[in-house]
Amino acid sequence: MTSDANQLPQPIRTDVLIVGAGPVGLFAAFEAGVIGLSCQIVDALGKIGGQCTELYPDKPIYDIPAIPACTARELVDRLMVQCKPFDVPIHLEQRVQSVEQRDDGRWIVRTDRGLVFDVAAILLAAGNGAFVPQKLALAEAVPLEGRHVHYSVPRVADFADKTVVVAGGGDSALDWALALRKVAHRVTLVHRRNGFSGADSSVAEMRRAVEAGEMDFIVGAISGLTVQDNALRSIGLRHIGGETQLEAEQLVVLYGLVADLGPIAQWNLSIHGGRVDVDTSNYESSRPGIFAVGDIANYPNKQKLILSGFHEASLALRKAYAYAFPDRKRVHVHSSYDARLAEKVAAAA
Amino acid sequence: MTSDANQLPQPIRTDVLIVGAGPVGLFAAFEAGVIGLSCQIVDALGKIGGQCTELYPDKPIYDIPAIPACTARELVDRLMVQCKPFDVPIHLEQRVQSVEQRDDGRWIVRTDRGLVFDVAAILLAAGNGAFVPQKLALAEAVPLEGRHVHYSVPRVADFADKTVVVAGGGDSALDWALALRKVAHRVTLVHRRNGFSGADSSVAEMRRAVEAGEMDFIVGAISGLTVQDNALRSIGLRHIGGETQLEAEQLVVLYGLVADLGPIAQWNLSIHGGRVDVDTSNYESSRPGIFAVGDIANYPNKQKLILSGFHEASLALRKAYAYAFPDRKRVHVHSSYDARLAEKVAAAA
Repeated sequence: MTSDANQLPQPIRTDVLIVGAGPVGLFAAFEAGVIGLSCQIVDALGKIGGQCTELYPDKPIYDIPAIPACTARELVDRLMVQCKPFDVPIHLEQRVQSVEQRDDGRWIVRTDRGLVFDVAAILLAAGNGAFVPQKLALAEAVPLEGRHVHYSVPRVADFADKTVVVAGGGDSALDWALALRKVAHRVTLVHRRNGFSGADSSVAEMRRAVEAGEMDFIVGAISGLTVQDNALRSIGLRHIGGETQLEAEQLVVLYGLVADLGPIAQWNLSIHGGRVDVDTSNYESSRPGIFAVGDIANYPNKQKLILSGFHEASLALRKAYAYAFPDRKRVHVHSSYDARLAEKVAAAA
Repeated sequence: MTSDANQLPQPIRTDVLIVGAGPVGLFAAFEAGVIGLSCQIVDALGKIGGQCTELYPDKPIYDIPAIPACTARELVDRLMVQCKPFDVPIHLEQRVQSVEQRDDGRWIVRTDRGLVFDVAAILLAAGNGAFVPQKLALAEAVPLEGRHVHYSVPRVADFADKTVVVAGGGDSALDWALALRKVAHRVTLVHRRNGFSGADSSVAEMRRAVEAGEMDFIVGAISGLTVQDNALRSIGLRHIGGETQLEAEQLVVLYGLVADLGPIAQWNLSIHGGRVDVDTSNYESSRPGIFAVGDIANYPNKQKLILSGFHEASLALRKAYAYAFPDRKRVHVHSSYDARLAEKVAAAA
């Protein structure tokens, strides 16, 4: 990746880049529209909603003001309706990578999949960061990654006739163990206990497959990897009975997703406890023009409430306006008095 | 009113007194319940909803997060449903008057109609203050107030056979001018222009009454009062043609309501521009234990958005908790994980 923006053809130019398509990012897109800022959204996940729809889509939420009860999924649906009048482009599966400030104060932001944005301000509404697979805490696993140790299964054919270990106790681990048993030489599912967080039907199917001799299941924790000639040979398993070695050519670890600040941690922002320090008068980070709102923001007495993110985004965008239009004096907008907005809402309904 | 709390029988004891039954006060009552604080609400108006339902009940609001459009009335209805699980008492037509801190740190708050509260913290969610009638900006009007100059009409009989001037252009002025013409010697309606904000039917009825010689209507602005022997004699009127004197024994001024901080301005709080200065980490005023949230709060870059009040109330109440329960460590509550709350919401539905 080059650091010279001039070599790149046509970056996407907009007033504000919103990082994160969770509830706070979506409401920020609406607020940006209300005060007259253009914006676009990027999110590392493949769908909108952030951790709300990723982690607890059907769990009821009771503390969104004036919505006595809704699921996370409903909340996101409502916010999509609300920001619809402004036709905000949302780029999914795009993780922000690098950022650099131009001489004129605008920012060039690049994603891991090649998008380039030219923006007046950046609003980080990235929750606890991007979700990435929880990895093995074993140093010897790192050089094997992508060859013998995997955190996803891009191509099933790569596992044909191999001795495969699948680790984990959720739906992904169960489903992939069941699927790979059809092509692999042998599949062993390893989980730290004899109980699963995956669907009951998947657990039942796995137990039936074990019963029928189509695959194995072992209770234990992975304690180490034996590597020879740069290839995986076996996996050390710690269990109640002690330690054993389990022969394996391929290891698929499906421990679920964890949040990670990722490349944002390298943006030279003041960060504490994995969160971006902000000033509560405008939720601006230590780098003017970069704002942090919602769970990713850090300030004294910060509460990780969705409703706090809504307020933070509203204030941050008013300051962002000054970067986008340094010569204009922004008029405070009460949405209820804005006839143009009323028309947009009616037209989008 | 005595300043000795000990002489009063049984003040109402609760954790937090919420001043204001507008959207922010109602949501604060819900949040208090969620984090385990008891509370009661007082409001100077005769109904809940604050300025929302007082000034623009049917105007659409577009910027409540996840509610693409609703009227102020609907917003208040939704918030009443949301706080219903906590059965919060609401005392209407009660304006907070005096406040004093006891030696143990708790507060005694008295209202203008005799209620006394004993609370650990006070949450001012009073919008722009209590609504009071807009008064004449004339020094000579003050000593006549209640005798010859009126801002409401408590007893129609007091105006029998008097020469009455009614000033104003809204529904109240039109309705009272029409009503008083039936008992008064003569009624003259004075308004600064020949257009009215009152209902078309009232305007038509007034014009018909003027046509029929039952009352008069003059376009003009009140420029002064002529007072003799402590009684009103005539009213100076400025209009396009110059100035005239209008004979009058009674003047009824109905210029509508304006917000006024009222007695709160005497509470020794740091105040700027009619708003209470607060610290944005907990929205506490200069007097620890008294919080200000919503439009009444003042801090750098404060925006008068309803959604800001929701956030401010949530943070303020977490600090209030420490005053109510100094020995307990409050556990952060995510509403979605609170089974007890889920039961309450279901029971109230």
